[in-house]
Amino acid sequence: MSRENIFIGVDGGATKSKVIIENSQGQLLGQTRGGPVALRLGVTNSWKVVLATIRMALAEAGLSLDDKRYDFHVGMGLSGCEITPKYNEFIATEHPFANLVLVSDSYAACLGAHDGADGASIIIGTGTVGYQIQGDKIIQVSGWGFPHDDQGSGAWLGLKAIELTFKWLDGRLQETSPLLEMIWERFGKDTSEIVTWSNSANSTRFAEITPLVLQQIENKDPIAIRLIQSSAKEIDAVGAAIVRRTDEQKALPCTLFGGVSHFIEPWLGEELKKRIVSRKHDATVGAILALKKRIKI
Amino acid sequence: MSRENIFIGVDGGATKSKVIIENSQGQLLGQTRGGPVALRLGVTNSWKVVLATIRMALAEAGLSLDDKRYDFHVGMGLSGCEITPKYNEFIATEHPFANLVLVSDSYAACLGAHDGADGASIIIGTGTVGYQIQGDKIIQVSGWGFPHDDQGSGAWLGLKAIELTFKWLDGRLQETSPLLEMIWERFGKDTSEIVTWSNSANSTRFAEITPLVLQQIENKDPIAIRLIQSSAKEIDAVGAAIVRRTDEQKALPCTLFGGVSHFIEPWLGEELKKRIVSRKHDATVGAILALKKRIKI
Repeated sequence: MSRENIFIGVDGGATKSKVIIENSQGQLLGQTRGGPVALRLGVTNSWKVVLATIRMALAEAGLSLDDKRYDFHVGMGLSGCEITPKYNEFIATEHPFANLVLVSDSYAACLGAHDGADGASIIIGTGTVGYQIQGDKIIQVSGWGFPHDDQGSGAWLGLKAIELTFKWLDGRLQETSPLLEMIWERFGKDTSEIVTWSNSANSTRFAEITPLVLQQIENKDPIAIRLIQSSAKEIDAVGAAIVRRTDEQKALPCTLFGGVSHFIEPWLGEELKKRIVSRKHDATVGAILALKKRIKI
Repeated sequence: MSRENIFIGVDGGATKSKVIIENSQGQLLGQTRGGPVALRLGVTNSWKVVLATIRMALAEAGLSLDDKRYDFHVGMGLSGCEITPKYNEFIATEHPFANLVLVSDSYAACLGAHDGADGASIIIGTGTVGYQIQGDKIIQVSGWGFPHDDQGSGAWLGLKAIELTFKWLDGRLQETSPLLEMIWERFGKDTSEIVTWSNSANSTRFAEITPLVLQQIENKDPIAIRLIQSSAKEIDAVGAAIVRRTDEQKALPCTLFGGVSHFIEPWLGEELKKRIVSRKHDATVGAILALKKRIKI
C-alpha cells in the first residue's frame, strides 16, 4: 500500500515564519507560527527554526515526521534566497522530506496571491517591492533597499515627513500643517532630539513616523495628502514598469499587500487601479503551489 | 616691559585641523596642519591634537609656549561645539593660554569668510549647511544630517543618482543617459554589487558617486543636468530661508564653499546669485576674529 502524501508550506521572513500542513485533497490539517527565517542570517539556524516550526505544525495535525505511513513534501518560500551561496547551502543540507522545493518569499507570496496563476504583487510595507510571475519569467521592480530605493514605502513616507519637518523648522518650508507640529511634538520640540534620532534611524525607525502621516490623511492635512500622493505616484511607476516588462506588455492582475498598501490604494492612478484584484491565498499556500508546480506528486 | 601678544587661530574639523600664528600686527608667522579635532570624538584627545598642532605651528614661527616674553591668545573653531557638555568640558580643561575663545567651526568659517562682518555662508560639500552671523544672531539652515537632510549636497546628489540608476535598471525610468550607464559600469553591471554597496553606503560613500554626475554636466547629460538643477533649487531654498530669518529680511552677502559649490553656483537662481561674494579668509582667521570680538587685547 502506497504511503499518503502530506504537503507542508513554509513562509519564512525576517520577522516571523508560518507553516501550514495540508493533505493531498488540499485540506488544512494544521498551522503554526515560528521565529524569523532569513537565509542571510545563517543557514544552520534557518534550518533549525524551520524544522522546529514544521514539527509544531505537524503535531497540531496529529502527525510526526517519523511516521512511515506518510511521505512529507515541503515547499518553502524563504527570505534571502536570492543569495546563491546561501540557497545552495540550504538545499544541500540533509533533510527528512520526500521532496523539497525552495523559492523566495516574494515568489511564494505572489504565487499564493494568484492561486498559482500568472500575476503581479506589489508589497507596500516598511519597504516596497513589485513582483510578477508570468510562466517562468520573474520580474522584480523596486525593493532594492533604503534610502536609495523602496520609494512609496512606510520607511520612505517617514523619511519624507522628517525631511519636511527639518525644512519647516529652519524656514525652508514656509507653509505649516498639523502633521509637522505633531512630529515636532513627538520629539519634545527639541532640535537636538530630532537630529540625534534621525542620525541613527534606519528604515524601521523612519517607518514609525508613517502612522502619523496616515492618521492625518483623514484630517485632510495638506502635507499628509501631498506625501501620500507622492507615494501613490511611485507605486504607479512600479505598476507601469511591470506592465512594460510583461511579454506583449499585457497587464496581468495585481494584488497589493503590506501595511501601507490599504492607505495608498485610493490614491493610485486608474491604470494600476483597474488591474488590482484581491489576494486569494497567502505565501504558505504559495509555497505548496511552487512545490506542486515543480514536482509531480 | 609688557609682553608681546601672539594670536593663534585653530580650525578643527572631523577630517583635519589647521593652525595659524599671527603677531599683533596681523602678520602670519607660521601655520601647520594636524589631525582631526571633533569634540564629539573625545575632549581629552581633541585637546591633545590641538596642543600638538599649535606647538608645531609655533615652532615654525620660532616660538614656544614656554617663552615668557609672550602672551599667547587662542581662538578655536571646533566641530562638535554644539554639544554643550563637550563644550563645557573642553573649556574647563587647564591650558597654557592667556585667553581662550571657543566657537564652532561653522561660526569661525562664516566670520573668516566675511572678515568679521555680518554675513552668510553656504557650505556644499558631502553635506549642506547654511550659516549666518548678524551681530549676536546666529542662523543655521539645513545641515541636520543625511539622508533626512543636507539636500543639494554631494551625498544627496550621489543618492539621487543611485535612485535613478535603480529606477532605470528595473524599468520605472524609461529614459536613459550616459551617466546611468557609467554608474552601472562602476558596479560591473551586477545587480547584487550595486544592491550590496547601496545597502551599506553612508553619506561619504554616496558622495563618491557625485564626481560622475559633475563630470557629466559638461557633457550635457540630461540626467546630470536635472540632478544639478534640483541641487541648485535646494540651495536656493537655503539662501531664501536665511534671508527670511534675517532681521528686517535684509539680504546679507553670502559666501559659498565646499567641494560641490563651484559646480552648483552657475545653476543658482538670481536671488541668491546676486548676494554671493568671494571668501575673504578661512576659518583659522575667523577663529582669531572670534577671539578679538569677545576679548579686548
